[in-house]
Amino acid sequence: MAALRPFRIALIQLGHIGHDKSQNLKHAQEMIKKAASGGGSKPPNLIVLPECFNSPYGHKYFPEYAESVQFKQGEPYDVQSSKSESVKILSAAAKEHGIWLIGGSIPERDDRDDGKLYNTATVYNPNGELIAIHRKVHLFDIEIPGKITFKESTTLSGGTHLTTFDTDFARIGLGICYDVRFPEMAMIAARKGCHAMIYPGAFNLTTGPLHWKLLQQARAVDNQIFVGMCSPARDLTADYHAWGHSLVVDPLGEVLVESGHDEEIVYADIDPSVFESTRRGIPVTTQRRFDVYPNVAV
Amino acid sequence: MAALRPFRIALIQLGHIGHDKSQNLKHAQEMIKKAASGGGSKPPNLIVLPECFNSPYGHKYFPEYAESVQFKQGEPYDVQSSKSESVKILSAAAKEHGIWLIGGSIPERDDRDDGKLYNTATVYNPNGELIAIHRKVHLFDIEIPGKITFKESTTLSGGTHLTTFDTDFARIGLGICYDVRFPEMAMIAARKGCHAMIYPGAFNLTTGPLHWKLLQQARAVDNQIFVGMCSPARDLTADYHAWGHSLVVDPLGEVLVESGHDEEIVYADIDPSVFESTRRGIPVTTQRRFDVYPNVAV
Repeated sequence: MAALRPFRIALIQLGHIGHDKSQNLKHAQEMIKKAASGGGSKPPNLIVLPECFNSPYGHKYFPEYAESVQFKQGEPYDVQSSKSESVKILSAAAKEHGIWLIGGSIPERDDRDDGKLYNTATVYNPNGELIAIHRKVHLFDIEIPGKITFKESTTLSGGTHLTTFDTDFARIGLGICYDVRFPEMAMIAARKGCHAMIYPGAFNLTTGPLHWKLLQQARAVDNQIFVGMCSPARDLTADYHAWGHSLVVDPLGEVLVESGHDEEIVYADIDPSVFESTRRGIPVTTQRRFDVYPNVAV
Repeated sequence: MAALRPFRIALIQLGHIGHDKSQNLKHAQEMIKKAASGGGSKPPNLIVLPECFNSPYGHKYFPEYAESVQFKQGEPYDVQSSKSESVKILSAAAKEHGIWLIGGSIPERDDRDDGKLYNTATVYNPNGELIAIHRKVHLFDIEIPGKITFKESTTLSGGTHLTTFDTDFARIGLGICYDVRFPEMAMIAARKGCHAMIYPGAFNLTTGPLHWKLLQQARAVDNQIFVGMCSPARDLTADYHAWGHSLVVDPLGEVLVESGHDEEIVYADIDPSVFESTRRGIPVTTQRRFDVYPNVAV
Protein backbone atom coordinates (compact mmCIF):
# COMPACT_ATOMS: atom_id res chain seq x y z
CA MET A 1 0.00 0.00 0.00
CA ALA A 2 1.22 3.48 -0.92
CA ALA A 3 2.56 5.68 1.86
CA LEU A 4 1.71 9.38 1.92
CA ARG A 5 4.58 11.61 0.83
CA PRO A 6 4.48 15.30 0.02
CA PHE A 7 3.17 15.85 -3.49
CA ARG A 8 1.89 18.59 -5.75
CA ILE A 9 -1.42 18.38 -7.56
CA ALA A 10 -2.58 20.44 -10.52
CA LEU A 11 -6.26 20.83 -11.41
CA ILE A 12 -6.94 21.89 -14.97
CA GLN A 13 -10.20 23.84 -15.08
CA LEU A 14 -10.47 23.24 -18.79
CA GLY A 15 -12.35 25.66 -21.02
CA HIS A 16 -13.29 25.74 -24.69
CA ILE A 17 -14.98 22.32 -24.61
CA GLY A 18 -16.98 22.36 -27.82
CA HIS A 19 -18.47 20.01 -30.37
CA ASP A 20 -15.20 19.16 -32.13
CA LYS A 21 -13.73 16.25 -30.20
CA SER A 22 -10.32 16.45 -31.87
CA GLN A 23 -10.12 20.10 -30.93
CA ASN A 24 -11.15 19.30 -27.33
CA LEU A 25 -8.41 16.68 -27.11
CA LYS A 26 -5.83 18.96 -28.66
CA HIS A 27 -6.64 21.70 -26.18
CA ALA A 28 -6.50 19.23 -23.27
CA GLN A 29 -3.04 18.14 -24.48
CA GLU A 30 -1.85 21.74 -24.56
CA MET A 31 -3.20 22.41 -21.07
CA ILE A 32 -1.61 19.24 -19.68
CA LYS A 33 1.70 20.43 -21.08
CA LYS A 34 1.17 23.81 -19.47
CA ALA A 35 0.17 22.28 -16.13
CA ALA A 36 3.16 19.93 -16.22
CA SER A 37 5.51 22.89 -16.46
CA GLY A 38 4.41 23.94 -12.99
CA GLY A 39 3.30 27.41 -13.99
CA GLY A 40 6.58 28.99 -12.97
CA SER A 41 6.79 26.94 -9.77
CA LYS A 42 7.49 23.30 -8.93
CA PRO A 43 6.05 20.83 -11.50
CA PRO A 44 3.14 18.75 -10.21
CA ASN A 45 3.24 15.02 -9.56
CA LEU A 46 -0.44 14.58 -10.42
CA ILE A 47 -2.57 16.37 -13.00
CA VAL A 48 -6.37 16.20 -13.05
CA LEU A 49 -8.74 17.02 -15.91
CA PRO A 50 -12.44 17.80 -15.40
CA GLU A 51 -15.52 15.65 -15.95
CA CYS A 52 -16.53 15.14 -19.59
CA PHE A 53 -13.56 17.02 -21.02
CA ASN A 54 -13.70 15.67 -24.59
CA SER A 55 -17.42 16.14 -25.20
CA PRO A 56 -20.14 18.66 -24.46
CA TYR A 57 -21.86 17.66 -21.21
CA GLY A 58 -25.31 16.38 -22.07
CA HIS A 59 -26.84 12.94 -22.40
CA LYS A 60 -27.74 13.62 -26.01
CA TYR A 61 -24.03 13.88 -26.78
CA PHE A 62 -22.84 10.83 -24.88
CA PRO A 63 -23.62 8.17 -27.53
CA GLU A 64 -21.90 10.15 -30.29
CA TYR A 65 -18.74 10.90 -28.31
CA ALA A 66 -18.46 7.57 -26.53
CA GLU A 67 -15.31 5.50 -26.99
CA SER A 68 -14.58 1.86 -26.33
CA VAL A 69 -11.91 1.53 -23.62
CA GLN A 70 -12.17 -2.17 -22.69
CA PHE A 71 -10.11 -1.92 -19.51
CA LYS A 72 -10.05 -5.00 -17.29
CA GLN A 73 -9.18 -4.49 -13.64
CA GLY A 74 -6.02 -6.38 -12.71
CA GLU A 75 -4.94 -7.02 -16.30
CA PRO A 76 -2.28 -5.10 -18.25
CA TYR A 77 -3.76 -2.75 -20.81
CA ASP A 78 -2.29 -2.34 -24.28
CA VAL A 79 -2.62 1.34 -25.09
CA GLN A 80 -1.28 0.87 -28.64
CA SER A 81 -4.16 -1.38 -29.61
CA SER A 82 -6.79 0.66 -27.73
CA LYS A 83 -9.82 1.73 -29.73
CA SER A 84 -10.01 4.90 -27.65
CA GLU A 85 -8.47 7.99 -29.18
CA SER A 86 -8.72 9.80 -25.84
CA VAL A 87 -6.89 7.02 -23.98
CA LYS A 88 -4.05 7.13 -26.52
CA ILE A 89 -3.66 10.86 -26.23
CA LEU A 90 -3.82 10.93 -22.44
CA SER A 91 -1.40 8.03 -22.16
CA ALA A 92 1.07 9.80 -24.41
CA ALA A 93 0.75 13.01 -22.41
CA ALA A 94 1.35 11.25 -19.08
CA LYS A 95 4.43 9.54 -20.51
CA GLU A 96 5.80 12.63 -22.23
CA HIS A 97 5.61 14.74 -19.10
CA GLY A 98 6.33 11.94 -16.62
CA ILE A 99 3.29 12.68 -14.50
CA TRP A 100 0.36 10.83 -12.95
CA LEU A 101 -2.78 11.81 -14.80
CA ILE A 102 -6.45 11.53 -13.90
CA GLY A 103 -8.01 12.01 -17.30
CA GLY A 104 -11.19 13.72 -16.11
CA SER A 105 -13.99 11.69 -17.60
CA ILE A 106 -15.20 10.72 -21.04
CA PRO A 107 -18.32 8.98 -22.32
CA GLU A 108 -17.40 5.28 -22.56
CA ARG A 109 -19.14 2.53 -24.53
CA ASP A 110 -18.71 -1.05 -23.37
CA ASP A 111 -18.92 -3.25 -26.46
CA ARG A 112 -18.62 -6.30 -24.23
CA ASP A 113 -21.90 -5.44 -22.53
CA ASP A 114 -24.58 -4.48 -25.06
CA GLY A 115 -22.87 -1.20 -25.80
CA LYS A 116 -23.79 0.26 -22.42
CA LEU A 117 -22.58 3.81 -21.89
CA TYR A 118 -20.73 5.08 -18.82
CA ASN A 119 -19.27 8.34 -17.55
CA THR A 120 -15.70 7.12 -17.06
CA ALA A 121 -12.47 8.45 -15.59
CA THR A 122 -9.16 6.97 -16.72
CA VAL A 123 -5.89 7.04 -14.75
CA TYR A 124 -2.32 6.90 -16.11
CA ASN A 125 1.05 6.50 -14.46
CA PRO A 126 4.17 8.38 -15.59
CA ASN A 127 4.98 5.50 -17.98
CA GLY A 128 1.74 6.19 -19.79
CA GLU A 129 0.13 2.98 -18.59
CA LEU A 130 -3.63 2.99 -18.05
CA ILE A 131 -3.76 1.65 -14.49
CA ALA A 132 -7.37 2.25 -13.35
CA ILE A 133 -10.75 3.45 -14.53
CA HIS A 134 -13.75 4.68 -12.55
CA ARG A 135 -17.26 4.56 -13.92
CA LYS A 136 -19.50 7.14 -12.22
CA VAL A 137 -21.56 5.12 -9.77
CA HIS A 138 -24.30 7.61 -8.88
CA LEU A 139 -25.95 9.06 -11.96
CA PHE A 140 -27.05 12.68 -11.95
CA ASP A 141 -30.80 12.84 -12.49
CA ILE A 142 -32.32 16.18 -11.65
CA GLU A 143 -35.57 17.91 -12.49
CA ILE A 144 -36.21 21.46 -11.41
CA PRO A 145 -39.36 22.69 -13.09
CA GLY A 146 -38.59 25.80 -15.08
CA LYS A 147 -34.87 25.68 -14.32
CA ILE A 148 -33.01 22.54 -15.30
CA THR A 149 -33.79 18.99 -16.28
CA PHE A 150 -30.93 16.58 -16.62
CA LYS A 151 -31.12 12.82 -16.55
CA GLU A 152 -27.84 11.02 -17.09
CA SER A 153 -29.71 7.76 -16.74
CA THR A 154 -31.45 8.45 -20.05
CA THR A 155 -28.35 7.22 -21.82
CA LEU A 156 -25.82 6.20 -19.13
CA SER A 157 -25.49 3.22 -16.83
CA GLY A 158 -24.03 3.55 -13.34
CA GLY A 159 -20.74 1.92 -12.49
CA THR A 160 -20.76 -0.91 -10.01
CA HIS A 161 -17.33 -0.52 -8.42
CA LEU A 162 -15.54 1.81 -6.08
CA THR A 163 -12.11 2.80 -7.32
CA THR A 164 -8.81 3.31 -5.52
CA PHE A 165 -5.28 3.24 -6.87
CA ASP A 166 -1.74 3.56 -5.55
CA THR A 167 0.80 6.11 -6.72
CA ASP A 168 4.33 6.61 -5.44
CA PHE A 169 3.09 9.39 -3.15
CA ALA A 170 -0.40 8.39 -1.94
CA ARG A 171 -3.29 5.98 -2.17
CA ILE A 172 -6.07 7.80 -3.98
CA GLY A 173 -9.81 7.20 -4.23
CA LEU A 174 -11.64 8.30 -7.34
CA GLY A 175 -15.25 9.40 -7.83
CA ILE A 176 -17.04 11.53 -10.40
CA CYS A 177 -19.15 14.59 -9.58
CA TYR A 178 -22.48 13.43 -8.11
CA ASP A 179 -20.61 10.54 -6.43
CA VAL A 180 -19.41 13.14 -3.90
CA ARG A 181 -22.95 13.45 -2.51
CA PHE A 182 -22.77 9.87 -1.28
CA PRO A 183 -20.54 9.75 1.78
CA GLU A 184 -20.15 5.98 1.66
CA MET A 185 -17.68 6.18 -1.21
CA ALA A 186 -15.15 8.40 0.57
CA MET A 187 -15.75 6.59 3.85
CA ILE A 188 -14.89 3.25 2.33
CA ALA A 189 -11.90 4.66 0.44
CA ALA A 190 -10.52 6.21 3.65
CA ARG A 191 -10.93 2.96 5.54
CA LYS A 192 -9.05 1.22 2.75
CA GLY A 193 -6.17 3.60 3.41
CA CYS A 194 -6.75 6.36 0.87
CA HIS A 195 -5.11 9.67 1.71
CA ALA A 196 -7.12 11.66 -0.81
CA MET A 197 -10.33 11.55 -2.83
CA ILE A 198 -10.35 13.15 -6.27
CA TYR A 199 -13.60 13.89 -8.10
CA PRO A 200 -13.64 15.34 -11.60
CA GLY A 201 -17.02 17.07 -11.49
CA ALA A 202 -19.29 19.69 -12.95
CA PHE A 203 -21.74 21.16 -10.45
CA ASN A 204 -24.03 23.84 -11.81
CA LEU A 205 -25.05 27.37 -10.86
CA THR A 206 -27.79 26.05 -8.55
CA THR A 207 -26.00 23.29 -6.67
CA GLY A 208 -22.54 24.83 -6.92
CA PRO A 209 -22.96 27.75 -4.53
CA LEU A 210 -24.89 25.60 -2.07
CA HIS A 211 -22.90 22.41 -1.85
CA TRP A 212 -19.72 22.27 -3.98
CA LYS A 213 -17.39 23.36 -1.20
CA LEU A 214 -19.47 22.00 1.68
CA LEU A 215 -19.44 18.44 0.35
CA GLN A 216 -15.68 18.45 -0.18
CA GLN A 217 -15.06 19.84 3.29
CA ALA A 218 -17.42 17.26 4.75
CA ARG A 219 -15.67 14.35 3.03
CA ALA A 220 -12.30 15.73 4.13
CA VAL A 221 -13.12 16.34 7.80
CA ASP A 222 -15.21 13.21 8.28
CA ASN A 223 -12.56 10.96 6.81
CA GLN A 224 -9.40 12.91 7.62
CA ILE A 225 -8.33 12.96 3.99
CA PHE A 226 -7.46 15.50 1.32
CA VAL A 227 -10.20 16.14 -1.25
CA GLY A 228 -9.99 17.71 -4.68
CA MET A 229 -12.60 18.38 -7.34
CA CYS A 230 -11.78 19.56 -10.85
CA SER A 231 -14.52 21.34 -12.81
CA PRO A 232 -14.67 22.50 -16.40
CA ALA A 233 -14.60 26.27 -16.84
CA ARG A 234 -17.97 28.00 -16.95
CA ASP A 235 -19.28 28.40 -20.50
CA LEU A 236 -22.62 30.17 -20.68
CA THR A 237 -22.89 29.32 -24.38
CA ALA A 238 -22.90 25.59 -23.57
CA ASP A 239 -25.99 23.54 -22.74
CA TYR A 240 -24.80 22.99 -19.19
CA HIS A 241 -23.34 25.79 -17.09
CA ALA A 242 -20.58 24.50 -14.83
CA TRP A 243 -19.90 26.12 -11.46
CA GLY A 244 -16.11 26.06 -11.84
CA HIS A 245 -14.31 26.76 -8.54
CA SER A 246 -11.99 23.75 -8.78
CA LEU A 247 -10.92 23.14 -5.22
CA VAL A 248 -8.51 21.26 -2.97
CA VAL A 249 -9.19 21.02 0.78
CA ASP A 250 -7.09 19.50 3.53
CA PRO A 251 -8.18 17.01 6.23
CA LEU A 252 -9.31 19.89 8.44
CA GLY A 253 -11.59 21.11 5.67
CA GLU A 254 -9.46 24.17 5.05
CA VAL A 255 -9.14 25.36 1.47
CA LEU A 256 -5.66 24.88 -0.01
CA VAL A 257 -6.58 26.35 -3.38
CA GLU A 258 -9.73 27.42 -5.18
CA SER A 259 -10.02 28.61 -8.77
CA GLY A 260 -12.44 31.13 -10.19
CA HIS A 261 -14.85 30.04 -12.92
CA ASP A 262 -12.81 30.73 -16.07
CA GLU A 263 -10.18 28.46 -17.59
CA GLU A 264 -7.36 28.18 -15.10
CA ILE A 265 -4.79 25.77 -13.70
CA VAL A 266 -4.50 25.68 -9.92
CA TYR A 267 -1.88 23.89 -7.84
CA ALA A 268 -1.86 22.62 -4.27
CA ASP A 269 0.92 21.13 -2.20
CA ILE A 270 -0.21 18.16 -0.18
CA ASP A 271 1.57 18.20 3.17
CA PRO A 272 1.37 14.96 5.17
CA SER A 273 2.26 16.77 8.38
CA VAL A 274 -1.30 18.07 8.58
CA PHE A 275 -2.16 14.65 9.92
CA GLU A 276 -0.32 15.54 13.09
CA SER A 277 -3.58 17.25 13.66
CA THR A 278 -3.27 18.12 17.32
CA ARG A 279 -0.56 20.47 16.12
CA ARG A 280 -3.40 22.40 14.55
CA GLY A 281 -5.66 21.93 17.53
CA ILE A 282 -8.14 19.47 16.13
CA PRO A 283 -8.71 16.06 17.63
CA VAL A 284 -8.65 13.26 15.12
CA THR A 285 -11.65 11.06 14.80
CA THR A 286 -9.99 7.73 14.24
CA GLN A 287 -11.52 6.18 17.34
CA ARG A 288 -14.68 5.09 15.63
CA ARG A 289 -17.02 2.94 17.69
CA PHE A 290 -17.60 -0.08 15.55
CA ASP A 291 -18.77 -1.85 18.68
CA VAL A 292 -21.75 0.50 18.62
CA TYR A 293 -22.34 0.51 14.85
CA PRO A 294 -20.87 -2.72 13.51
CA ASN A 295 -22.91 -2.56 10.33
CA VAL A 296 -20.95 0.36 8.98
CA ALA A 297 -17.54 -1.20 9.54
CA VAL A 298 -15.78 -1.60 6.22
CA MET B 1 -43.09 5.41 13.56
CA ALA B 2 -43.57 9.15 13.93
CA ALA B 3 -44.51 11.12 10.83
CA LEU B 4 -42.94 14.51 10.22
CA ARG B 5 -45.28 17.42 10.92
CA PRO B 6 -44.44 21.11 11.15
CA PHE B 7 -42.99 21.90 14.57
CA ARG B 8 -41.17 24.63 16.40
CA ILE B 9 -37.93 24.04 18.26
CA ALA B 10 -36.33 26.27 20.89
CA LEU B 11 -32.64 26.03 21.76
CA ILE B 12 -31.70 27.49 25.13
CA GLN B 13 -28.12 28.72 24.98
CA LEU B 14 -27.91 28.66 28.76
CA GLY B 15 -25.54 30.98 30.60
CA HIS B 16 -24.56 31.41 34.24
CA ILE B 17 -23.57 27.76 34.69
CA GLY B 18 -21.57 27.90 37.91
CA HIS B 19 -20.51 25.70 40.80
CA ASP B 20 -23.85 25.82 42.62
CA LYS B 21 -25.90 23.00 41.13
CA SER B 22 -29.16 24.13 42.71
CA GLN B 23 -28.66 27.55 41.21
CA ASN B 24 -27.88 26.02 37.79
CA LEU B 25 -31.08 23.99 37.93
CA LYS B 26 -33.13 26.96 39.09
CA HIS B 27 -31.84 29.06 36.23
CA ALA B 28 -32.52 26.26 33.73
CA GLN B 29 -36.10 26.08 35.05
CA GLU B 30 -36.54 29.81 34.55
CA MET B 31 -35.16 29.65 31.03
CA ILE B 32 -37.37 26.68 30.10
CA LYS B 33 -40.36 28.71 31.27
CA LYS B 34 -39.20 31.63 29.17
CA ALA B 35 -38.57 29.44 26.12
CA ALA B 36 -41.97 27.78 26.52
CA SER B 37 -43.68 31.15 26.29
CA GLY B 38 -42.42 31.41 22.70
CA GLY B 39 -40.65 34.72 23.19
CA GLY B 40 -43.57 36.74 21.87
CA SER B 41 -44.24 34.32 19.03
CA LYS B 42 -45.64 30.79 18.75
CA PRO B 43 -44.69 28.51 21.68
CA PRO B 44 -42.29 25.71 20.75
CA ASN B 45 -43.12 22.01 20.68
CA LEU B 46 -39.59 20.99 21.65
CA ILE B 47 -37.11 22.70 23.96
CA VAL B 48 -33.42 21.80 24.09
CA LEU B 49 -30.89 22.56 26.83
CA PRO B 50 -27.12 22.48 26.25
CA GLU B 51 -24.53 19.87 27.17
CA CYS B 52 -23.58 19.73 30.85
CA PHE B 53 -26.08 22.36 31.95
CA ASN B 54 -26.15 21.57 35.67
CA SER B 55 -22.39 21.38 36.25
CA PRO B 56 -19.24 23.16 35.18
CA TYR B 57 -17.81 21.35 32.15
CA GLY B 58 -14.65 19.56 33.26
CA HIS B 59 -13.84 15.98 34.13
CA LYS B 60 -12.76 17.01 37.60
CA TYR B 61 -16.35 18.13 38.26
CA PHE B 62 -18.16 15.12 36.83
CA PRO B 63 -17.86 12.79 39.88
CA GLU B 64 -19.11 15.48 42.28
CA TYR B 65 -22.09 16.54 40.15
CA ALA B 66 -23.06 13.08 38.88
CA GLU B 67 -26.55 11.79 39.63
CA SER B 68 -28.01 8.30 39.52
CA VAL B 69 -30.73 8.10 36.87
CA GLN B 70 -31.21 4.32 36.49
CA PHE B 71 -33.24 4.48 33.28
CA LYS B 72 -33.95 1.18 31.57
CA GLN B 73 -34.75 1.29 27.87
CA GLY B 74 -38.24 -0.03 27.21
CA GLU B 75 -39.38 0.10 30.83
CA PRO B 76 -41.57 2.77 32.41
CA TYR B 77 -39.60 5.14 34.63
CA ASP B 78 -40.92 6.36 37.96
CA VAL B 79 -39.85 9.97 38.20
CA GLN B 80 -41.20 10.33 41.75
CA SER B 81 -38.79 7.74 43.10
CA SER B 82 -35.83 8.91 40.96
CA LYS B 83 -32.63 9.64 42.83
CA SER B 84 -31.82 12.36 40.28
CA GLU B 85 -32.70 15.89 41.31
CA SER B 86 -32.17 17.06 37.72
CA VAL B 87 -34.54 14.46 36.30
CA LYS B 88 -37.25 15.50 38.74
CA ILE B 89 -36.90 19.17 37.89
CA LEU B 90 -36.80 18.62 34.11
CA SER B 91 -39.76 16.24 34.26
CA ALA B 92 -41.79 18.81 36.20
CA ALA B 93 -40.87 21.54 33.72
CA ALA B 94 -41.87 19.44 30.68
CA LYS B 95 -45.20 18.62 32.31
CA GLU B 96 -45.89 22.15 33.54
CA HIS B 97 -45.35 23.67 30.10
CA GLY B 98 -46.67 20.73 28.09
CA ILE B 99 -43.55 20.52 25.90
CA TRP B 100 -41.09 17.90 24.71
CA LEU B 101 -37.77 18.53 26.45
CA ILE B 102 -34.25 17.38 25.64
CA GLY B 103 -32.59 18.07 28.96
CA GLY B 104 -29.16 18.88 27.55
CA SER B 105 -26.78 16.59 29.37
CA ILE B 106 -25.73 15.93 32.95
CA PRO B 107 -22.99 13.83 34.51
CA GLU B 108 -24.61 10.48 35.32
CA ARG B 109 -23.42 7.77 37.72
CA ASP B 110 -24.58 4.21 37.11
CA ASP B 111 -24.75 2.51 40.51
CA ARG B 112 -25.68 -0.73 38.76
CA ASP B 113 -22.33 -0.80 36.98
CA ASP B 114 -19.47 -0.03 39.37
CA GLY B 115 -20.48 3.60 39.58
CA LYS B 116 -19.34 4.32 36.03
CA LEU B 117 -19.84 7.92 34.95
CA TYR B 118 -21.46 9.05 31.70
CA ASN B 119 -22.28 12.30 29.93
CA THR B 120 -26.03 11.76 29.57
CA ALA B 121 -28.94 13.47 27.87
CA THR B 122 -32.47 12.85 29.17
CA VAL B 123 -35.68 13.28 27.16
CA TYR B 124 -39.18 14.06 28.48
CA ASN B 125 -42.58 14.09 26.87
CA PRO B 126 -45.26 16.70 27.65
CA ASN B 127 -46.58 14.44 30.43
CA GLY B 128 -43.23 14.74 32.17
CA GLU B 129 -42.32 11.13 31.50
CA LEU B 130 -38.65 10.30 31.00
CA ILE B 131 -38.83 8.44 27.70
CA ALA B 132 -35.20 8.14 26.53
CA ILE B 133 -31.64 8.79 27.56
CA HIS B 134 -28.48 9.11 25.47
CA ARG B 135 -25.04 8.48 26.87
CA LYS B 136 -22.37 10.28 24.85
CA VAL B 137 -20.79 7.54 22.75
CA HIS B 138 -17.63 9.27 21.53
CA LEU B 139 -15.67 10.82 24.39
CA PHE B 140 -13.87 14.10 23.85
CA ASP B 141 -10.15 13.57 24.40
CA ILE B 142 -8.00 16.37 23.10
CA GLU B 143 -4.46 17.51 23.72
CA ILE B 144 -3.15 20.67 22.12
CA PRO B 145 0.21 21.47 23.66
CA GLY B 146 0.12 24.94 25.15
CA LYS B 147 -3.56 25.46 24.35
CA ILE B 148 -6.00 22.95 25.75
CA THR B 149 -5.91 19.49 27.24
CA PHE B 150 -9.21 17.79 27.90
CA LYS B 151 -9.78 14.11 28.42
CA GLU B 152 -13.33 13.11 29.18
CA SER B 153 -12.15 9.53 29.34
CA THR B 154 -10.26 10.36 32.56
CA THR B 155 -13.52 10.07 34.44
CA LEU B 156 -16.23 9.16 31.92
CA SER B 157 -17.19 5.99 30.08
CA GLY B 158 -18.62 6.07 26.56
CA GLY B 159 -22.18 5.01 25.93
CA THR B 160 -22.78 1.89 23.91
CA HIS B 161 -26.08 2.70 22.22
CA LEU B 162 -27.41 4.97 19.53
CA THR B 163 -30.56 6.81 20.54
CA THR B 164 -33.71 7.68 18.65
CA PHE B 165 -37.17 8.52 19.96
CA ASP B 166 -40.58 9.34 18.55
CA THR B 167 -42.55 12.49 19.28
CA ASP B 168 -45.94 13.48 17.89
CA PHE B 169 -44.20 15.58 15.21
CA ALA B 170 -40.99 13.72 14.22
CA ARG B 171 -38.63 10.86 14.85
CA ILE B 172 -35.53 12.34 16.41
CA GLY B 173 -31.98 11.05 16.79
CA LEU B 174 -29.92 12.22 19.73
CA GLY B 175 -26.16 12.64 20.11
CA ILE B 176 -23.94 14.74 22.34
CA CYS B 177 -21.27 17.16 21.08
CA TYR B 178 -18.25 15.14 19.87
CA ASP B 179 -20.69 12.47 18.62
CA VAL B 180 -21.41 14.84 15.70
CA ARG B 181 -17.89 14.23 14.35
CA PHE B 182 -18.78 10.61 13.65
CA PRO B 183 -21.06 10.47 10.62
CA GLU B 184 -22.18 6.92 11.31
CA MET B 185 -24.51 8.04 14.08
CA ALA B 186 -26.58 10.42 11.94
CA MET B 187 -26.40 8.05 8.98
CA ILE B 188 -27.89 5.20 10.98
CA ALA B 189 -30.50 7.45 12.59
CA ALA B 190 -31.60 8.75 9.18
CA ARG B 191 -31.88 5.24 7.80
CA LYS B 192 -34.01 4.35 10.80
CA GLY B 193 -36.37 7.11 9.73
CA CYS B 194 -35.22 10.07 11.83
CA HIS B 195 -36.19 13.47 10.47
CA ALA B 196 -33.78 15.37 12.70
CA MET B 197 -30.63 14.94 14.75
CA ILE B 198 -30.24 17.01 17.92
CA TYR B 199 -26.88 17.35 19.65
CA PRO B 200 -26.49 19.28 22.89
CA GLY B 201 -22.84 20.26 22.58
CA ALA B 202 -20.07 22.56 23.66
CA PHE B 203 -17.42 23.13 21.02
CA ASN B 204 -14.61 25.48 21.98
CA LEU B 205 -12.93 28.55 20.51
CA THR B 206 -10.54 26.38 18.46
CA THR B 207 -12.88 23.77 17.01
CA GLY B 208 -15.96 25.99 16.97
CA PRO B 209 -15.00 28.37 14.16
CA LEU B 210 -13.56 25.53 12.07
CA HIS B 211 -16.16 22.81 12.33
CA TRP B 212 -19.28 23.64 14.41
CA LYS B 213 -21.39 24.74 11.45
CA LEU B 214 -19.67 22.56 8.85
CA LEU B 215 -20.38 19.32 10.70
CA GLN B 216 -24.05 20.17 11.16
CA GLN B 217 -24.43 21.11 7.50
CA ALA B 218 -22.67 17.90 6.49
CA ARG B 219 -24.94 15.71 8.62
CA ALA B 220 -27.97 17.54 7.26
CA VAL B 221 -27.11 17.41 3.56
CA ASP B 222 -25.68 13.90 3.58
CA ASN B 223 -28.71 12.47 5.35
CA GLN B 224 -31.44 14.86 4.19
CA ILE B 225 -32.42 15.67 7.76
CA PHE B 226 -32.73 18.71 10.01
CA VAL B 227 -29.87 19.17 12.49
CA GLY B 228 -29.70 21.26 15.64
CA MET B 229 -26.96 21.78 18.20
CA CYS B 230 -27.49 23.61 21.48
CA SER B 231 -24.41 25.10 23.19
CA PRO B 232 -23.98 26.73 26.56
CA ALA B 233 -23.30 30.46 26.41
CA ARG B 234 -19.64 31.48 26.31
CA ASP B 235 -18.23 32.18 29.78
CA LEU B 236 -14.59 33.25 29.73
CA THR B 237 -14.44 32.95 33.54
CA ALA B 238 -15.19 29.21 33.29
CA ASP B 239 -12.56 26.48 32.84
CA TYR B 240 -13.91 25.64 29.39
CA HIS B 241 -14.82 28.32 26.87
CA ALA B 242 -17.82 27.27 24.79
CA TRP B 243 -18.23 28.46 21.22
CA GLY B 244 -21.94 29.20 21.53
CA HIS B 245 -23.62 29.74 18.15
CA SER B 246 -26.49 27.33 18.79
CA LEU B 247 -27.72 26.41 15.37
CA VAL B 248 -30.48 24.74 13.39
CA VAL B 249 -29.92 23.80 9.74
CA ASP B 250 -32.32 22.32 7.21
CA PRO B 251 -31.80 19.28 4.93
CA LEU B 252 -30.13 21.54 2.34
CA GLY B 253 -27.63 22.67 4.93
CA GLU B 254 -29.10 26.15 5.05
CA VAL B 255 -29.12 27.92 8.40
CA LEU B 256 -32.60 28.36 9.87
CA VAL B 257 -31.35 30.12 12.99
CA GLU B 258 -28.03 30.78 14.67
CA SER B 259 -27.44 32.43 18.02
CA GLY B 260 -24.56 34.59 19.08
CA HIS B 261 -22.36 33.48 21.98
CA ASP B 262 -24.17 35.03 24.95
CA GLU B 263 -27.16 33.59 26.76
CA GLU B 264 -30.03 33.51 24.31
CA ILE B 265 -33.05 31.48 23.25
CA VAL B 266 -33.41 30.86 19.52
CA TYR B 267 -36.37 29.34 17.71
CA ALA B 268 -36.70 27.57 14.38
CA ASP B 269 -39.77 26.37 12.51
CA ILE B 270 -39.29 22.95 10.99
CA ASP B 271 -41.07 22.83 7.64
CA PRO B 272 -41.56 19.35 6.15
CA SER B 273 -42.10 20.82 2.69
CA VAL B 274 -38.35 21.35 2.37
CA PHE B 275 -38.23 17.65 1.54
CA GLU B 276 -39.89 18.45 -1.75
CA SER B 277 -36.36 19.34 -2.53
CA THR B 278 -36.58 19.75 -6.28
CA ARG B 279 -38.75 22.75 -5.46
CA ARG B 280 -35.52 24.25 -4.15
CA GLY B 281 -33.46 22.89 -6.99
CA ILE B 282 -31.48 20.20 -5.23
CA PRO B 283 -31.64 16.56 -6.19
CA VAL B 284 -32.22 14.25 -3.28
CA THR B 285 -29.69 11.56 -2.59
CA THR B 286 -31.96 8.75 -1.58
CA GLN B 287 -30.82 6.47 -4.38
CA ARG B 288 -27.91 5.05 -2.47
CA ARG B 289 -26.06 2.18 -4.13
CA PHE B 290 -26.07 -0.52 -1.54
CA ASP B 291 -25.33 -2.96 -4.34
CA VAL B 292 -21.94 -1.27 -4.60
CA TYR B 293 -21.29 -0.81 -0.88
CA PRO B 294 -23.37 -3.42 0.92
CA ASN B 295 -21.29 -3.20 4.06
CA VAL B 296 -22.59 0.22 4.93
CA ALA B 297 -26.26 -0.68 4.56
CA VAL B 298 -28.00 -0.24 7.90
